[in-house]
Amino acid sequence: MNFPSKLIENAVEELAKLPGIGRKTALRLALHMLKEESEETFLLAESLVKMRTDVKHCKQCYNISDTEICSICSNPLRDKSVLCVVSDIRDVIAIENTSQYKGLYHVLGGVISPLEGVGPSDLEIESLLERLPKSEVKEILLAISPTMEGDTTAFYLTRKLRDQNLRITTIARGVPVGGELEYTDEITLGRSIVERTAYGKV
Amino acid sequence: MNFPSKLIENAVEELAKLPGIGRKTALRLALHMLKEESEETFLLAESLVKMRTDVKHCKQCYNISDTEICSICSNPLRDKSVLCVVSDIRDVIAIENTSQYKGLYHVLGGVISPLEGVGPSDLEIESLLERLPKSEVKEILLAISPTMEGDTTAFYLTRKLRDQNLRITTIARGVPVGGELEYTDEITLGRSIVERTAYGKV
Repeated sequence: MNFPSKLIENAVEELAKLPGIGRKTALRLALHMLKEESEETFLLAESLVKMRTDVKHCKQCYNISDTEICSICSNPLRDKSVLCVVSDIRDVIAIENTSQYKGLYHVLGGVISPLEGVGPSDLEIESLLERLPKSEVKEILLAISPTMEGDTTAFYLTRKLRDQNLRITTIARGVPVGGELEYTDEITLGRSIVERTAYGKV
Repeated sequence: MNFPSKLIENAVEELAKLPGIGRKTALRLALHMLKEESEETFLLAESLVKMRTDVKHCKQCYNISDTEICSICSNPLRDKSVLCVVSDIRDVIAIENTSQYKGLYHVLGGVISPLEGVGPSDLEIESLLERLPKSEVKEILLAISPTMEGDTTAFYLTRKLRDQNLRITTIARGVPVGGELEYTDEITLGRSIVERTAYGKV
């Protein structure tokens, strides 16, 4: 692509480094910024720099946070007896959006993946084991995606946790709400039958 | 969406103002930046601010430029007898990428659209008419999209230009290269027959 301006070319190249943004989209974004008030671009740039500079990870659960201890860990209304283990910050946001969970979290920062060179020591597993004896946690809720790597991680965690006299649970697998039986894969449908619940329970 | 950090929320909100980027995509971009080196985010922010602050419009053709007169207008090798009129900077980039055009440009900055409140005085039409007598231009090539607004703009321009003893041309309409006859709309196919060219001409 020939650019009429080196400045636009630079901006397009930087934007195109972001995931899911190609050079055509990047150019569209850059030209949009040139049409808008310059104040808009300055606000965007400032918010990105400020986020990258000031965002911390909570020292307790490794969720992102503006403070040393995040707003969930420091909330006295949260149930401190349940700890939900997730692989990613996005999972915390997704679960919080359901308004169905009132306990605490622990963010592993990934899943065990030998192919990508991620071992247990690269994840926040040691900090989880250290955190438990000092806590009031009685139940560990594993909310890890049911992929090969996710299942490996969950299996590793249950082995590490089995001596600690904790109730270990996992999120229910089943037919999604609004999902059609005939389009559900056999494994999910099979588990939804094996783990059937009393009608009208929720 | 509940965000664990006000800083991320701000960044997501600013990113989501960009066209084609919703809040979910914005969050994905923000979390990507948090995983990357902070230097990457700083470079992106800097390139955007620099572009928005320093990019100029060429005083002659209104193309974007790093200098007062753009690299196309100031290039002595360009054919100064042909002037291509386009509505948008993106059209200049698209035509330049074909490597088939060696003349000059004039960027209108939009098309006449009464519905959106864009009249001839909002476009760089006056500057085009002022520019012509001082120039060596002998041919005006109208390269404006064949929409209702584009056709109106082209018609308005030809009326304004008809006394100036210029050759006025427009880009060829026809079946796209690689296009299939049976899927081409009737108007395009009809024009491709009326405006047929000698075989092997290009």
